[in-house]
Amino acid sequence: MQLHVEGTGARPAFADDLLGYESIAVVGATGAVGREALQLLADCDVPRHRIRAFASERSAGSFVDCGEAKLRVEPFGASAFRDHGLALLCADADTARRSRGLAADSRCLLVDNSSAFRLDHDVPLVVPEVNADAIGAPAPRLVANPNCSTILLVVAAQPLRSRFGLEEIVVATYQSVSGAGAPAVDELRAETERALRGEASSPVVFRESCAFNVFSHDSPTDPETGRNQEEQKLIDETRKIFGDPGLLVSPTCVRVPVVRAHTEAVRLRFERPASEHEVREALAAAPSITLVDDRVRGDFPTPQKAARRNDVLVGRIRRDPCDPPGHDGRSRVWSLLLCGDQLRKGAATNALQVAALAARRGLR
Amino acid sequence: MQLHVEGTGARPAFADDLLGYESIAVVGATGAVGREALQLLADCDVPRHRIRAFASERSAGSFVDCGEAKLRVEPFGASAFRDHGLALLCADADTARRSRGLAADSRCLLVDNSSAFRLDHDVPLVVPEVNADAIGAPAPRLVANPNCSTILLVVAAQPLRSRFGLEEIVVATYQSVSGAGAPAVDELRAETERALRGEASSPVVFRESCAFNVFSHDSPTDPETGRNQEEQKLIDETRKIFGDPGLLVSPTCVRVPVVRAHTEAVRLRFERPASEHEVREALAAAPSITLVDDRVRGDFPTPQKAARRNDVLVGRIRRDPCDPPGHDGRSRVWSLLLCGDQLRKGAATNALQVAALAARRGLR
Repeated sequence: MQLHVEGTGARPAFADDLLGYESIAVVGATGAVGREALQLLADCDVPRHRIRAFASERSAGSFVDCGEAKLRVEPFGASAFRDHGLALLCADADTARRSRGLAADSRCLLVDNSSAFRLDHDVPLVVPEVNADAIGAPAPRLVANPNCSTILLVVAAQPLRSRFGLEEIVVATYQSVSGAGAPAVDELRAETERALRGEASSPVVFRESCAFNVFSHDSPTDPETGRNQEEQKLIDETRKIFGDPGLLVSPTCVRVPVVRAHTEAVRLRFERPASEHEVREALAAAPSITLVDDRVRGDFPTPQKAARRNDVLVGRIRRDPCDPPGHDGRSRVWSLLLCGDQLRKGAATNALQVAALAARRGLR
Repeated sequence: MQLHVEGTGARPAFADDLLGYESIAVVGATGAVGREALQLLADCDVPRHRIRAFASERSAGSFVDCGEAKLRVEPFGASAFRDHGLALLCADADTARRSRGLAADSRCLLVDNSSAFRLDHDVPLVVPEVNADAIGAPAPRLVANPNCSTILLVVAAQPLRSRFGLEEIVVATYQSVSGAGAPAVDELRAETERALRGEASSPVVFRESCAFNVFSHDSPTDPETGRNQEEQKLIDETRKIFGDPGLLVSPTCVRVPVVRAHTEAVRLRFERPASEHEVREALAAAPSITLVDDRVRGDFPTPQKAARRNDVLVGRIRRDPCDPPGHDGRSRVWSLLLCGDQLRKGAATNALQVAALAARRGLR
């Protein structure tokens, strides 16, 4: 049990496009997503001299892994933003806002993992499998990377939405602790060891013990709506990415004692009825999806199977009992279970795919 | 972290009614539910000489805890079923069927925790807060105790159903491993220790590692419908208990690395619109429900809070974003999160409440 970043050994398909950037800065390089981004860049064989790691003054001078190499962490500042460069912002919303100012005069593409700009009308919010066209002329200088749960959800929903239309999503999440950063993983280990010894819990990162427990997502809850921020993001960002402000999205977000990769139980209501064969066919043919759905052997997606992968595992595909099939065997409500590594496709992988897409379109 | 059964210190309200039984046999006394039942009987101050423990030949002669006392385990047989007695069947479906035969000539009430008779038309399936009237004249000799997830769900849904009518339930579960029996708890500990040491997992009880992982419920999946048995139980039993064969129920059942108490993310569609005040009022006034729903402090139900309690914790009560309120502030779709100890209210507590109810009605 460790968050430690490992290579998958496979060179991602988008790797070549990243060579279009003369400089790639990872801002927030010591955090969970930053470390993952550095590993992915190593998996992509990006020359190490083009990669630079930035973090707060506190971390400056330390070293971070980038594949087999060690990179010296530089203090965050304007030097991160170079012409013809890429800056992967893997820090908080404040750092993202500062970065936008510092980079204003450079020809550097910012891909931001924070929530700072996601809902801004002039900032594209992009999952390449869904809305690659959101990156077009005029060239964006800033692209927002969606929330992890949202990315995993829209990747799985898109092939069905494009074929059958989508009216409503009901989703319950089982989110791993590393979504709350690397210290949360340390807390899961420490709390688990305490629980095994029969000692009382003393959580710091989370309000509740994360060992042998599940709890409502740790983001603040709106006193009026009763929704937590994670749930509100799932609603707002899914609508923006799909370009469908009226889409019905009903989320419940929950943390589980898992190190990495999120799970989501998803129920979709289509506009047009579909047969089981059509649903499976659409998912099987879609990019970034791997079906794991063996009813006889009981082999379905789990976070352990999804960890360190760049794709999303989808299984438990089934007709919803609330919507019996018509004469033609088709129905409109379908359920599935998905698992995806929220540090990979839910964050670093998607950000690098966005950067690769922008490079491919010559928009840097 | 242990399954070990502990008293709550509180004497349940139904305790006096159990004194109506001259003999109480716990069949399957060495299993997770059997041990819980023995502890509950001790909490109820049932005289120890009236309580007997039965298990398979293999366990006969060993001792089980009943509060401070130790009971010698007797080999299962016809002697478990005495006139004016109660037999709590905490074993498998085969033992339940054998019990029915062995008890046929006695005036002994059987309350069965297995799935053997739950859907039989001539056997009441009872959650006292919902359908106490299912125990009426003529006196039943056999009452089925519902599946754990079902009990917790219907307890929370009933006060809303009775006031606003109920059309549809969408539920995703986060089920603790002890629902799969005491060996599953040992496996969770062993697998967790292995994972912390960085060793490979070697699950026996479950198909997947239960440490730092979640997986689709371990019951068999129907190759045709894609639903696992746990999900089918939730559908069938909820409909029977509510007496509503057309009720729409859409479940996804998942295991999480939690020792005891299940969590359920529930979305309910009512027949008639309700205001938030009305929804809260109905839940707050309902039996066996405790509200834990502080949006400001972020205090909501968790399995750790629900463990060893006889009631169901309900929180995250909120209007569903898919159904905006009308002019009068009312809407028909509401979500909530519930946690309940599946060995207590989900099994042993409900079984004893059923027995108490039967005794109160003089139907033994």
